Amino acid sequence: MDDQKYMRMALDLAKKGRGWTSPNPMVGAVIVKDGKVIGKGWHQKYRSLHAEREALANCRQSAKDATLYVTLEPCCHHGNQPPCTEAILESGIKEVVVGCLDPNPLVAGKGIEILKNHGILVRNGILEQECRQLNQAFLYWIQTGYPYCALKYAMTLDGKIAAASGESKWITSSKARNQVHLLRHEYAAILVGINTVLKDDPMLNCRLENTKDPIRIVVDTHLRLPLDSQLVQSAKNIPLIAATCQNDSTKIAEYEKAGVTVLICQSKDNQVDLKDLFYQLGQMKINSVLIEGGPAIAASALDQGLVQKVYTYISPKLFGGTHSKSPIGGQGAWYPSDCIKVKGCKVHTIGADFLIEGEIESNVYRDH
Amino acid sequence: MDDQKYMRMALDLAKKGRGWTSPNPMVGAVIVKDGKVIGKGWHQKYRSLHAEREALANCRQSAKDATLYVTLEPCCHHGNQPPCTEAILESGIKEVVVGCLDPNPLVAGKGIEILKNHGILVRNGILEQECRQLNQAFLYWIQTGYPYCALKYAMTLDGKIAAASGESKWITSSKARNQVHLLRHEYAAILVGINTVLKDDPMLNCRLENTKDPIRIVVDTHLRLPLDSQLVQSAKNIPLIAATCQNDSTKIAEYEKAGVTVLICQSKDNQVDLKDLFYQLGQMKINSVLIEGGPAIAASALDQGLVQKVYTYISPKLFGGTHSKSPIGGQGAWYPSDCIKVKGCKVHTIGADFLIEGEIESNVYRDH
Repeated sequence: MDDQKYMRMALDLAKKGRGWTSPNPMVGAVIVKDGKVIGKGWHQKYRSLHAEREALANCRQSAKDATLYVTLEPCCHHGNQPPCTEAILESGIKEVVVGCLDPNPLVAGKGIEILKNHGILVRNGILEQECRQLNQAFLYWIQTGYPYCALKYAMTLDGKIAAASGESKWITSSKARNQVHLLRHEYAAILVGINTVLKDDPMLNCRLENTKDPIRIVVDTHLRLPLDSQLVQSAKNIPLIAATCQNDSTKIAEYEKAGVTVLICQSKDNQVDLKDLFYQLGQMKINSVLIEGGPAIAASALDQGLVQKVYTYISPKLFGGTHSKSPIGGQGAWYPSDCIKVKGCKVHTIGADFLIEGEIESNVYRDH
Repeated sequence: MDDQKYMRMALDLAKKGRGWTSPNPMVGAVIVKDGKVIGKGWHQKYRSLHAEREALANCRQSAKDATLYVTLEPCCHHGNQPPCTEAILESGIKEVVVGCLDPNPLVAGKGIEILKNHGILVRNGILEQECRQLNQAFLYWIQTGYPYCALKYAMTLDGKIAAASGESKWITSSKARNQVHLLRHEYAAILVGINTVLKDDPMLNCRLENTKDPIRIVVDTHLRLPLDSQLVQSAKNIPLIAATCQNDSTKIAEYEKAGVTVLICQSKDNQVDLKDLFYQLGQMKINSVLIEGGPAIAASALDQGLVQKVYTYISPKLFGGTHSKSPIGGQGAWYPSDCIKVKGCKVHTIGADFLIEGEIESNVYRDH
């Protein structure tokens, strides 16, 4: 029971790093001696101390013979921080309780092995499911090389993301829209299609206090992104990536001068091949992406099996309209049995709106 | 407190009549004497005893000087049953506690007045809100002349009611579909457009035990309803109404021979004018209608302000498809602010599916 209690404490600490640690995972640590917590810490931010070292630094007394609870296997490699295993060995800690293993090939059980080889008692798998869940995005990225990807859209009760004029401001209430800004903080990057930019000239930043702005990615096959758009104008302050198939060095130089990173991608069906783009993003250590539209991008990402999660915001209103837009375009499933299933759905009430969130069950490539 | 206790008992009794009493309201009655319930009853079915008479008939002892709790004002007119006020006066009951008034112009406070004039103590408005709510459909119909109308559709998490092929079997699980059959029991009639019939050849009956089949209505502007369809073939057993603008007496005779009731309606935009149809249905004492599709009918009914309630079934799957159908067609709201608002939404989990039900807030006629 104590194991679970301290691991939960470590988990709660880890969560304080949400949105700040990418591309690192969120990690929390608690040091316990004689039944008392003597130190706590979490990985607060990328490039800051790891959770284990934070907890040791915060210890109110010697950690000798103490037990360390840590949500993720301690690292054993030199990154921008020295290995945590070294700090643990130096501290005289006699027991380490781990939430889940780090599948990072640089760690992957080696962290635990080093500790054991030095006579430290190691137990693993306490609240494992929750520890994994916390770093779902990181774990997906480290294992596949692709960023963990969520699709978010806001629609009416009759499945429309815009009225007949194309206007979509606003579907949901400000309370739900604030929650979307929180998602922008949580995800490393936010991705939209060029049409969304041309239509709305959005900032795609996070407008809440004590949050970070996500890296902004525009899928822009033909480099139509206006240099005077809010996105480009703010590119020197908030990173902006334009993904394109247009290898036009003069044009690219203009964007780069404005602070935009231009990624040349392979093409698929005369559009940016999202799979290639996602591969490049993964290489750039962007470990999570939130797709915010439009319907063509959403369809393409789903069709290519790139999406792991869906956030469906539903507002209690009806637009109707045979030609008014739905969240996902493309050709679509031909038969109902060709659908993409969403599992583990949970529904939340946000003011007058609803959010249904769930995980993509099948990433079948749909052939018609 | 006792008032509420007995009225709630009467309400629970009333609910046992759900689906069976139309065009009458559901009513429950409890007779209390010396702090004990001595009789209970409810209006079980159209043409059977009213709740008050049922309760009196079930009394285990004389109702003299007892108190009657009844969810709706006792009737005072001769319908297919004699007035309940007479039975109450004969019984020697000394006090009547009423849930809500009956807005039926034949009653409307007169029932209570007659009782008072005969020296009976009458109190009104106990659990009034719930008593009204129970007979929402009846009250709407008796006050407006139009049937209370609900729109029901089942869609994917991305707002599609069919895959790209047009196929829609099935969106939701059998558990949710069973619940729809329960709605068919509750509503007096079910209404679909001719395209739904031509595509699916449905029965539109209620396939659950101890339920009734609804009257089936097909909006069929040009009388295309196939004589060999399941609907027509079963018309002698389960009432079927074809609403048309086609005043073709030879054709109509064929339908009538098969047991179909053909209603000639005014036209609006070269289609059956749903408002005229609903008026005729109201005149026929059909006090509630459940619209089950398709998108054109839904749009038309909403645009004409005929819909009071929406049942949105949502299945955790994605179809996608730019041209795959959404629940509501028509021109749609031009701007988001032209939307039809849905109020008091409640979300229910039905197996893996969700149901969001709410009431239409604004019945604005949308001009573009």
